[in-house]
Amino acid sequence: MKPMDLPLRRSAGSRPVAVDRLRGGRAIATQDCVAEEVPVALEYNGVSHAVMLATPADLEDFGLGFSLTEDIVDRASDIRGIDVVAGPHGITVRIDVASACFVRLKERRRNLAGRSGCGLCGMESLPEAVRAPPVLRSAAAFPAHTLLDALHALRGGLQPLHEATGATHAAGFGDASGQLLLVREDVGRHNALDKLIGALVREGHDVARGFIVSSSRASYEMASKTARSGATLLAAVSGVTGLAIDLAEAAGLALVGFARGDAMSIYSHAERVLWDRSHG
Amino acid sequence: MKPMDLPLRRSAGSRPVAVDRLRGGRAIATQDCVAEEVPVALEYNGVSHAVMLATPADLEDFGLGFSLTEDIVDRASDIRGIDVVAGPHGITVRIDVASACFVRLKERRRNLAGRSGCGLCGMESLPEAVRAPPVLRSAAAFPAHTLLDALHALRGGLQPLHEATGATHAAGFGDASGQLLLVREDVGRHNALDKLIGALVREGHDVARGFIVSSSRASYEMASKTARSGATLLAAVSGVTGLAIDLAEAAGLALVGFARGDAMSIYSHAERVLWDRSHG
Repeated sequence: MKPMDLPLRRSAGSRPVAVDRLRGGRAIATQDCVAEEVPVALEYNGVSHAVMLATPADLEDFGLGFSLTEDIVDRASDIRGIDVVAGPHGITVRIDVASACFVRLKERRRNLAGRSGCGLCGMESLPEAVRAPPVLRSAAAFPAHTLLDALHALRGGLQPLHEATGATHAAGFGDASGQLLLVREDVGRHNALDKLIGALVREGHDVARGFIVSSSRASYEMASKTARSGATLLAAVSGVTGLAIDLAEAAGLALVGFARGDAMSIYSHAERVLWDRSHG
Repeated sequence: MKPMDLPLRRSAGSRPVAVDRLRGGRAIATQDCVAEEVPVALEYNGVSHAVMLATPADLEDFGLGFSLTEDIVDRASDIRGIDVVAGPHGITVRIDVASACFVRLKERRRNLAGRSGCGLCGMESLPEAVRAPPVLRSAAAFPAHTLLDALHALRGGLQPLHEATGATHAAGFGDASGQLLLVREDVGRHNALDKLIGALVREGHDVARGFIVSSSRASYEMASKTARSGATLLAAVSGVTGLAIDLAEAAGLALVGFARGDAMSIYSHAERVLWDRSHG
């Protein structure tokens, strides 16, 4: 259980490595570019809260987005400041939150019996693991082709880290015209989404007026974070899970999967996707 | 923060759902099959340890594999029993471990200052986030084509949940002949790997004599869990991360990425992959 004695090289998100590339039984020694993955600790008012493996880029966005989608703060103005500090074992994102939020967080921590787990951002007990999000009241709806346009744009050059490494996920925010306004990338799809949401809020976008696209699958956490951001639609390139549908139905979130080419599957709140229903 | 008021439907891993399938602007209302994702709590000697979102199949394997790859027990015989109990908010895997392991776990928990995060199975502080695995001493090596054969077999019918849902990952164990001996699936790739390792140990396979294949990417945690299982090679269909390479180099693990068709990239310990080097 000793800490791994490895130099933690940090960069904007990727690094070159030596690789033996085999094809048809023949090898060439060449160079490849791989995504960085470093332990990132989130600290609130000096108290460590969680450690995640993430790509070391856009970590202020990550801190802001995570704080919002995990209900640690109610609004961006509850955050007094975010500092990103690199250390020998990883990177610490120091977040200074309003004292009311910190008191609430301490209360939540006190209610936890001990150590908690991955996949649910520190939830330890089953009753609190799956939380009902606030219900989305906006009547926003988007033409089907705008979702496909946005995903097409995402794949067409807006994922520089993925193009360099082939091993990262992206989340993007599209507007009613199908234009992608912002994209964030990370080795983890939840992290990419948290970074995107943080960046949207920081830049003052009205999240409720657009939709979110993801290069990956849509699981419970992706649906939950999207609903908590105020966006009313999540469109994923790949499949969805049963629990993501349950949450989306309850939250008023349109959940779209397998959105590729000219096709998509709509799993919840299809009224938020506009198409010529006379052709149905 | 109230618990989500949703019925948690449970099945062997998937369920039918209604879906609007759009293609070329026309929609049909049809049925789809999606992967189940439920909160699964791991409890050691009555104390809750972690909650993860997982596919509710092979949860005994999951409990055993997680306990081994997260260093909670040193060997399967440290586990006295595993019970899987379904409740209203999810599933609890109750694991009864030897008292020495439980004392050690309590000691680890006491050293943690509070709540901890996702992605690292409950690690809270940066120094303990990235742990050096034991170094793999086996001289095992595998012909390149056996890795590709195993991955080909994995895609060729050994992922029933993925075939039904298109939204799950698989981990498989191959032997020196390239035959896949065991496969496990889950909505989470780490969970699929933990289930596989648990099943391998339960069935008495000599893990050090085979290799592991993954339908997904190879991140730090995938490399770490593989090394801790005793397997000496991890071959992934998709890319690898920088930290996974660091860990693999230190642990003596061969890390192979982008293993598809007749090609692969070898990022560490290429001596464990055999090919005719005179063609290099």
